Parts: sequence; C-alpha cells; structure tokens
Amino acid sequence: MKFKRLALIGCGLMGGSFALAMREQGCVKEVTGFSASLATRQRALNLQVIDRACDSIAQAVEGADLVLLAVPVRATDACLQALRTTLSPHALLMDVGSTKGDVVAAARATLGERLPCFVPAHPIAGKEVAGIEHAQATLYQQRKTILTPLPETQAGHVQLAREVWERVGSTVFELSPEAHDATFAAVSHLPHMLAFAAINALLAQPHGHAMMQMGGPGFRDFSRIAASAPAVWRDILLMNQQEVLAQSRHFRAALAQLETAIESQDAAALEQLIEQASVARAAWQLNGLSDANDAA
Amino acid sequence: MKFKRLALIGCGLMGGSFALAMREQGCVKEVTGFSASLATRQRALNLQVIDRACDSIAQAVEGADLVLLAVPVRATDACLQALRTTLSPHALLMDVGSTKGDVVAAARATLGERLPCFVPAHPIAGKEVAGIEHAQATLYQQRKTILTPLPETQAGHVQLAREVWERVGSTVFELSPEAHDATFAAVSHLPHMLAFAAINALLAQPHGHAMMQMGGPGFRDFSRIAASAPAVWRDILLMNQQEVLAQSRHFRAALAQLETAIESQDAAALEQLIEQASVARAAWQLNGLSDANDAA
Repeated sequence: MKFKRLALIGCGLMGGSFALAMREQGCVKEVTGFSASLATRQRALNLQVIDRACDSIAQAVEGADLVLLAVPVRATDACLQALRTTLSPHALLMDVGSTKGDVVAAARATLGERLPCFVPAHPIAGKEVAGIEHAQATLYQQRKTILTPLPETQAGHVQLAREVWERVGSTVFELSPEAHDATFAAVSHLPHMLAFAAINALLAQPHGHAMMQMGGPGFRDFSRIAASAPAVWRDILLMNQQEVLAQSRHFRAALAQLETAIESQDAAALEQLIEQASVARAAWQLNGLSDANDAA
Repeated sequence: MKFKRLALIGCGLMGGSFALAMREQGCVKEVTGFSASLATRQRALNLQVIDRACDSIAQAVEGADLVLLAVPVRATDACLQALRTTLSPHALLMDVGSTKGDVVAAARATLGERLPCFVPAHPIAGKEVAGIEHAQATLYQQRKTILTPLPETQAGHVQLAREVWERVGSTVFELSPEAHDATFAAVSHLPHMLAFAAINALLAQPHGHAMMQMGGPGFRDFSRIAASAPAVWRDILLMNQQEVLAQSRHFRAALAQLETAIESQDAAALEQLIEQASVARAAWQLNGLSDANDAA
C-alpha cells in the first residue's frame, strides 16, 4: 500500500500523528496540509509533518489519493463542502471524528457523487494535550479504530481504510453510525462529562482547591480526561446530545442505587453493587492487554 | 531510626508494603505479623514480609515498639480492643485507614491510657489489586501520607510517625480528622463511587458489555478505580457516610449544569464549564510531579 499524496485537513494532534505514522510506514510519498491557522500550517511544515502547506482545502486536496479530515467535529460540514470541488473520484476520504451520526449526515448533504469515497473513521486514541507539537507516530498503536461505512461506500474503500488503520497500528472494528454513537456516549462521552463535573464540583466548594491538592494516584487517573480540550468536547457533547443525555440518565440511576445503600447503611447491598462493578472492571482489558502491560 | 520490633496487624497490600519498605530501609530488626486468615499469615511468612506469624493480635503486639494496623476500617475497633492489653506505653501505634473520624472515635473509646501512643495515618497509596502477593517496598514512594494526631497524642510520637512515613518515601501532611474525612470524600471516596456507578450503568444496559469492550485509554484510566476491593470500599463509604453523600450532592449539581447546557445546545455555557474543569485539572500535579513523569 502506497499513496501518492496524503492531504491532511487539520494539522493537530490526531492528523499530525496519522501523517507521521503513515510516513514512518513508508505508505505515503507526499503530504499536503491545510489548517485554518497560518501559524499551525507553518509549525506542521517546520516539524516535517507535512511537505507542503496549502492556502485552501481545495488546493490541499487536489491530486490527493488519500484525504484525512482531522478537525473539531463541528467544522466537518464546512470542510466537506470545501473539499468536494477538487476531490478525486478515486480518493479515499476519511475523518477521525468522535461522533459519527452528524458526520454521516453532513457527508450525505454535501458530498453528492463523491459520497462513495467516504469511510467515516474514529480512532480511539488521543491525549489530554492537543496540538501538532504533541503529534507522534505511535499514537494509534495498540488502539482501536472504528469504521462506520455507509451502504453507498465503495467496498474496496472500506477494505483499504481497514488496511490503512491496521498499518498505523490499530485494531479495526466496524459499527453502524448509530451503534457507534450510542457506544461512545457510554464509554467515552459520559466518562468525560463525569470527570468535568467532578472537577467543577470541587471548584464550587470553598476549600475545593486545597482539597484537590490532596488527591492521589486514583484521583489522577480518574480525572485525567477532565483536562481534555474544551472546544473538542463541547462539540462532541452537543453533536451526540441525545445519546449523551440518555447515558447520563443511566448513570444517575446507578449512582442513586449506591447513595440509597449508603444512606440506609445497607452493607450487603452496597458490597454487592461495588462487587458487580469491581468484577466487571477487573475483567476488562484494553485490546486484550492487561492494564499492567499497557501503561503507555 | 531503628525499631526493635514492628508488629503488623493485617498482612495485606498496605501492611505488607510498609513492612517491606521498613526492612529495605533498615529501620526494623524484626517483624511479627497477625492476619485473621491463617493462610494469609503463612503467605506473609513465606514471602518474608514477616519473620514470625502470631496466633493472636495480643501476641503479635507484645514487645513491639512500632505497631501498624492495616485492616479494613470496620475491623479497627475489634483490633484496638485486642491489642491494648499488650501494647507497650512507649510503642508508636498507627493505622492506615482511609477514613479517620471513625478510627479516632474507636481509639478514644478503647485505648484508655494508651491513647497518646496512637497517631492516625492515611497513606494515599494503593493498587486496584489487593493482597500480600502485590505488596512492594515502593508502594509509598512519591505518595502523600496524612497524619491526623489528637490533642492527646504524644508530640514526640507525631514527629516519629512523620519520620517513618518520610523514610518509606512519602510526603507527610497533617490535618484534623474532620478535615481529612471531608477532603477524601471529595478527592477519593466520591471518585470511587462515580467509577462504580459508571460501570454499573453500563452493565444495566442490554448491550452494556459489548459497549464496554470498545472503551479506549480514557475509559481505562477513568474506570481503573472501579476494580477496587469491594469490602474495603463498602466500609469506607459507610464509615464516611455524611461526607460522601454531601460530595455526591455537590457532584449532582455540577453534572446538572453540564446536562442543562447540552440539553439547551448552549455551546458557550458548555464550553465555559468544560474549560473551567480542563484548566484546573491541567494545572493539577501529583506531589509536584507532572502526569508524564509519574506514570507508575
């Protein structure tokens, strides 16, 4: 697998890491890049993540056989409109958005006869720091990537997309856009919301800041995702509104069960509720690796 | 600092790690041990965590100048009663419990003229796996330990306790028992409750197990503490009931703010709430070390 030209739309952590990984694998000959910010484009060039900085999306995409859209999800619509004019009918177009229903709707509304080029993708990777400076070729290694192809998507493109993500180190799964959004509301969007709320609850208390300083390794790991990029998570939570709110209701019910057991000093009920969570979590593994083997 | 004999009451992860660290530092000559389970006593002996397994708490404590009580918090009361008969008036007695108000009340009710020996301690360390097999001399390194001395505690003993915990690698803080329990309800007990509830909310859904398999590194870190030992956390949550429920109310209010912003598609309000959490969490450091330097 060797692409003639990768067009990177959005030169941030996710896109930059993809470009670096594809280069390292020898899978791309040239990388063109566009970012809304001129300074970011220049940094991507200086860091040799891209070979050529372009002044427009249309220009970056022209002649590319692989296009990766790696922008905050709310910018997807505008980017798709901008790139359709020069997108080759043979190009493989992917995004990396954390929500899929909205991206698919935007693609249907915008891409027209280029819709079969598009394979929506969501690599489950990231860091709590954003920006091209933190991009690294290893970001997608030992990570899951979810593809949510449409009925219209070219079958060959789905297979090619699978190979691309495997090449940068991911294990690839396929889900419908709807199943994807419900699943990630539960295992990603809700946990982020809870971590944000836990920090805000501390800050709302008179001694909250001093209390926070006493946190240990449990607090560190639990709250790590609360440091995530505000604009990215604002978009994700708004775009996946219905599923996120549904998961929040499930969560509140589970929290109420614990509160009731604590309030009534029902040791047996409380232990049973904790045991259920503890057994399920202890059995969980990231990509079949135990936590200990995956401290990256 | 060299103790003639350390008596370890409770040969689990916390106690075992303390004994190993004190040995490694050359701070104890002999370690006697008691555990309610004969098999655990035997394992502690085989693993050379203790030198001598005792059949009773009174026997283990006899002649010891350092006594560490490392049992689930609800067992504290019974252990204090058992050890007071043979506790030397010069011995330093400490516990490692995650709640302090209840331990102090039990000590006041039980220890009588030995109360000045007692320095309640809470090392903020642990693993999501329990048991003497997981004990390690490094467990308390680069961790915080909170001491909550009473007005009756011998001043020399507080100083000695401080030196002991610094010797095994901790940074030592002093708080009142009340401030301790409020603080750890916020930064430890509530996060555990939220992690338990998040897993239980998943398990309550038809596809919950399959959804959980899709979790990435964010889910891994956020939910790690959900695998904690059920009996330990049942006791902590029940013992610190009032503070835990108060923190849960603070949390629910903060979660409701996020839900309202999502429900009303109020992007500005949502971003502001996330930003507040993100900035505070990004600035947080465990013992002055950045997250990246502390991936232990």
